Amino acid sequence: MAYLNENYLKLQAGYLFPEIARRVRQFSEEDPEAAKRLIHCGIGDVTEPLPRAAIEAMKAAAEELGQRETFRGYGPEQGYEFLRNKIAQFDYRDRGIEITDDEIFLSDGSKCDCGHILDILGGQNKIAITDPVYPVYVDTNVMAGHTGPARADGGYEGIVYLPCTIENSFVPEPPGEHADVIYLITWVQYAQDHDSLLLFDAAYEGYISNPEIPHSIFEIDGARECAIEFRSFSKTGGFTGVRCGFTVLPKSVLARTENGKKLALHPLWHRRWSTKSNGVSYPVQRGAEALYSEEGREQVRALIDHYMGNARILSEGARAAGFAVHGGTNAPYIWVETRPGQTSWQTFDWMLRELNVVITPGSGFGLRGEGFFRVSAFNSRPNAVEVARRLRDASGPNS
Amino acid sequence: MAYLNENYLKLQAGYLFPEIARRVRQFSEEDPEAAKRLIHCGIGDVTEPLPRAAIEAMKAAAEELGQRETFRGYGPEQGYEFLRNKIAQFDYRDRGIEITDDEIFLSDGSKCDCGHILDILGGQNKIAITDPVYPVYVDTNVMAGHTGPARADGGYEGIVYLPCTIENSFVPEPPGEHADVIYLITWVQYAQDHDSLLLFDAAYEGYISNPEIPHSIFEIDGARECAIEFRSFSKTGGFTGVRCGFTVLPKSVLARTENGKKLALHPLWHRRWSTKSNGVSYPVQRGAEALYSEEGREQVRALIDHYMGNARILSEGARAAGFAVHGGTNAPYIWVETRPGQTSWQTFDWMLRELNVVITPGSGFGLRGEGFFRVSAFNSRPNAVEVARRLRDASGPNS
Repeated sequence: MAYLNENYLKLQAGYLFPEIARRVRQFSEEDPEAAKRLIHCGIGDVTEPLPRAAIEAMKAAAEELGQRETFRGYGPEQGYEFLRNKIAQFDYRDRGIEITDDEIFLSDGSKCDCGHILDILGGQNKIAITDPVYPVYVDTNVMAGHTGPARADGGYEGIVYLPCTIENSFVPEPPGEHADVIYLITWVQYAQDHDSLLLFDAAYEGYISNPEIPHSIFEIDGARECAIEFRSFSKTGGFTGVRCGFTVLPKSVLARTENGKKLALHPLWHRRWSTKSNGVSYPVQRGAEALYSEEGREQVRALIDHYMGNARILSEGARAAGFAVHGGTNAPYIWVETRPGQTSWQTFDWMLRELNVVITPGSGFGLRGEGFFRVSAFNSRPNAVEVARRLRDASGPNS
Repeated sequence: MAYLNENYLKLQAGYLFPEIARRVRQFSEEDPEAAKRLIHCGIGDVTEPLPRAAIEAMKAAAEELGQRETFRGYGPEQGYEFLRNKIAQFDYRDRGIEITDDEIFLSDGSKCDCGHILDILGGQNKIAITDPVYPVYVDTNVMAGHTGPARADGGYEGIVYLPCTIENSFVPEPPGEHADVIYLITWVQYAQDHDSLLLFDAAYEGYISNPEIPHSIFEIDGARECAIEFRSFSKTGGFTGVRCGFTVLPKSVLARTENGKKLALHPLWHRRWSTKSNGVSYPVQRGAEALYSEEGREQVRALIDHYMGNARILSEGARAAGFAVHGGTNAPYIWVETRPGQTSWQTFDWMLRELNVVITPGSGFGLRGEGFFRVSAFNSRPNAVEVARRLRDASGPNS
């Protein structure tokens, strides 16, 4: 009988969002009337229609596939040049960042890329991950056998957790020990000192409003030698259901073999794509390309302004209800402190049953997420206004 | 410094199709006039426009994403029920095969699935692969560390190769030794005796004309306990650039842990999709669904008839030129024996330079592919007729 990958058996029950869905389903069965009032501010999924430019481009591309003269079969595994060039030009070179077209690899989304990147990294790496964090970073490392078993507190042996707390303003200290691969953190200096690889997920760069925050890790000197960046059109172009993202892997990023030889990761990543993929759907790539047209960029801007407007309304509502609120200025989520003595799952249940609002409990993102809940600003304006009203009107779980 | 996955360094230079592309590029630069006459019968890529039903469905789905009322964000990671249900019904249950909707997992193609399936299998498995074979099966196992280093003959230590030769009519004997995971072969009896897992790639089932050949491995008694099937819309709906395929993983397929516990693979595969993917592009799933409409099925049938007509024309041309020809009746490729004393790469170069026809050298598919070349029938009718004419007119590399 075939052996299975036993690392999967280490995974803790229920990935966060399926567990949320289960509780919402149970509530809806118990109280169908209240369920009609439910507003979803949990999973970070967009709600507004796609930019018109992207829709027209996808329809035109589909039509091309219906004509012999313009038909296209297999595309390049790395993605079409027309899109890789636009990305490298608009997102990088126009901002003074040196990135070549063939350092861009298109995929069907950052979630996939975050898992796939582990294919080309060795099993010996010491992995450092912030806490709280997107659970996919942890789970994909568990699946790849980069961790020991789960501990009683929900963490995994072998991972270096980097606490993000109110005390450190959610900017963790570099780890005391050595780490080979670090998720998310922009300490290029630490990475250079420790020769670490930074995996930088820039999924929300479009939402940055503070001009001092870099949009790309490659704006920081030295990052071309130590970082891989993940980006997605999900939250800019509303592509969560259309599926398109990309990685930027500079040819200057090196990794080592067991016996100390240093080699570029770029050819391995290229080989991985050639062998394991046939690239992203052609109409989808045309749709993503259209986001870079003048019209497309205006439409993306309007979408972002809409969601960030929601974030402001939600923040004001939560503050008016006496909650302490973090975030919501450079990303379309607000992080809210739970009432004293309430866990984040207790607050989840209270919000679900009393306010009929679905949020995400902070503990789902890691140990240090306990004591917080996350409210997504991806919603219609009337829904955001209504959630803010319900928060203001509620007296809280402890009252 | 981060460790890289050293298994990638074992990979033999140049995946087959990039090497073909390199030689074609070199020839085209040397002889631009002859390059204008080039006809591509190498890579198995479709050439005819997509079925109209699929195009209209994709355009309508793109338009849905442009309206607030019909907008959809993240879809189910396993794929939408509307498509999984059609697949399970039309391809399986209507043929008397017991497959439930949730045993179907949609993906962006079989090539991806063949690599990803190794995620949930253990590293201890003994892998058996036919020779010749699709190089992706071999390379993905090398990347996952399931093999030793490459041997001088191009094979890899640790893989059990199953020779397909003229002598055994290309139906290999079961391996003398035990194998845990076997690619492609329909020996359900051997798999039951040895408790092996069969990975069955049914990418070309639509091209089967012999009524005695099963379209699905699950038509064979006992397969629900030992097989995983891979399918794709690439060669039926012409989806090579649109990207959609699926795996069928019955809940009754078990695998073992190191200490002998038997567990179903289905929950592992489900977890893998939940964690590492957000499913297939929504307009693409609607396009695939349309292939199951009455109109769509007629259009798919016409496409298959077109390509199989090409296969007949190419076979006749090659036979008239004195070549021994195999295949071309249940799949859109013909396998042709090289002239005595000629290697398959020598024949490739001769076909490229003298006939200006690009084929695939058999040795690219494995040791036992030497002595053959593969001609793809994926072409326009005029191209197929022209290749047949050039073959007939040529006197062969030895004359």
